[in-house]
Amino acid sequence: MDKAGEFCFKVDSDMVDFRRRMTIPVIGAQLLHVATVHAAERGFGYDDMQRRNVAWVLSRLAIEVSAHPGLSEDIKVCTWIEGASRLFTERCFELTSSTKGSFGYARSIWAAIDMETRRPTPLDVEALNTYRVDRPCPIEKPGKIAPVENTVPGEPYRIRYSDLDINGHLNSIRYMERLLDMFDIGMYAIRDISRFEIAYMSEGKYGMNLSIHCREASPGVYNMAMCNEGKAICRAAVAWTDPVRH
Amino acid sequence: MDKAGEFCFKVDSDMVDFRRRMTIPVIGAQLLHVATVHAAERGFGYDDMQRRNVAWVLSRLAIEVSAHPGLSEDIKVCTWIEGASRLFTERCFELTSSTKGSFGYARSIWAAIDMETRRPTPLDVEALNTYRVDRPCPIEKPGKIAPVENTVPGEPYRIRYSDLDINGHLNSIRYMERLLDMFDIGMYAIRDISRFEIAYMSEGKYGMNLSIHCREASPGVYNMAMCNEGKAICRAAVAWTDPVRH
Repeated sequence: MDKAGEFCFKVDSDMVDFRRRMTIPVIGAQLLHVATVHAAERGFGYDDMQRRNVAWVLSRLAIEVSAHPGLSEDIKVCTWIEGASRLFTERCFELTSSTKGSFGYARSIWAAIDMETRRPTPLDVEALNTYRVDRPCPIEKPGKIAPVENTVPGEPYRIRYSDLDINGHLNSIRYMERLLDMFDIGMYAIRDISRFEIAYMSEGKYGMNLSIHCREASPGVYNMAMCNEGKAICRAAVAWTDPVRH
Repeated sequence: MDKAGEFCFKVDSDMVDFRRRMTIPVIGAQLLHVATVHAAERGFGYDDMQRRNVAWVLSRLAIEVSAHPGLSEDIKVCTWIEGASRLFTERCFELTSSTKGSFGYARSIWAAIDMETRRPTPLDVEALNTYRVDRPCPIEKPGKIAPVENTVPGEPYRIRYSDLDINGHLNSIRYMERLLDMFDIGMYAIRDISRFEIAYMSEGKYGMNLSIHCREASPGVYNMAMCNEGKAICRAAVAWTDPVRH
């Protein structure tokens, strides 16, 4: 079994937006899928963790892309473990397209939680590090995102049935969708997202009345927060660029 | 090329709800995917239609299931054309699971619209009917659904960026999700949907302020409507049953 994993898919019509290009949440969903399969194939997947009464939780994710693949392009995702420490493991990704070559990287940070207490639990660092790969992932690590919930009003959103994941919590991709829905469609028509970063802080639950906040921190860079009763359940940062004409 | 098409997939963790069973919108998404691939392989797919400046639109869909497949089950979808008339073609589906056998059927009705005028356009009936298969699809055809928007108040929903499809309209699966979100999670915890039927009437557009209405027409059977400015853009009917213990 190779340490790194490679997975391929074709960009389908249900993966693209009105500009016919793969969206950031769709890229996110593919990365999480690939992470799940890669981990399961190497003995630390969902079922393996469940036997120890623990579950993986995604703590942070940063995606950077220099291009947005379009309909019918063939995409390859390579994923590898950069390293594991007592409570966190870092997983990287490289995205390659059949027509655009390497067009993006992503970094993710995962913790394991005890399924009863929902508290972080120590990882099997030695086992994880046997799959460690020393390969460059030339994007900035996910970092601290300034709070914005006290500086700008929020938009309300109530968590519904179709937002929930297998554990009954707001699913990781829906966080991304709800945040990205804060930008007007006019922005999607003419600009591109070059970097999306999210820090998952606590679990969104059915019926929660969230407020979603968004503030331009510097030109084209937005800090965001999703709050429940005034307390952030996630923060995000989104950088927009003007498209490069190919 | 066989007239009917067969497609297989595995039920992934991102396809199931908190009861770890594939949801109706996920089944719907798989059916639409399978329909798209089956049509493209036989020369009447998205690209073929676009060359004639027309596009397929889904007019009606009915899904009936006697069981709800769970995580990691292997699912086979068989699809075939039951017949085509001047303006509509009927496509059927049978769903089979590796552990539950045949567990459901679906019927869909499609029209082609001119991409400029957005008006229905005649189909190539002869070409479509060369792929006609005479195979039973033992569920009721999608029928007339009584209006409910004037009898019960609606819940508001505004169409966002992430709800849009490749054409910039509310995507077919999001209609289903928004409708099914009208039922309380307590119902999903103890009951099962046995039949879901939807009639797509007009295109949901970005920023529309919809109202979603739901009324129990007979025990366990709900009629629904999604309206824009008082006019229905879709109607649906949902039948719930008490689960059969296996």
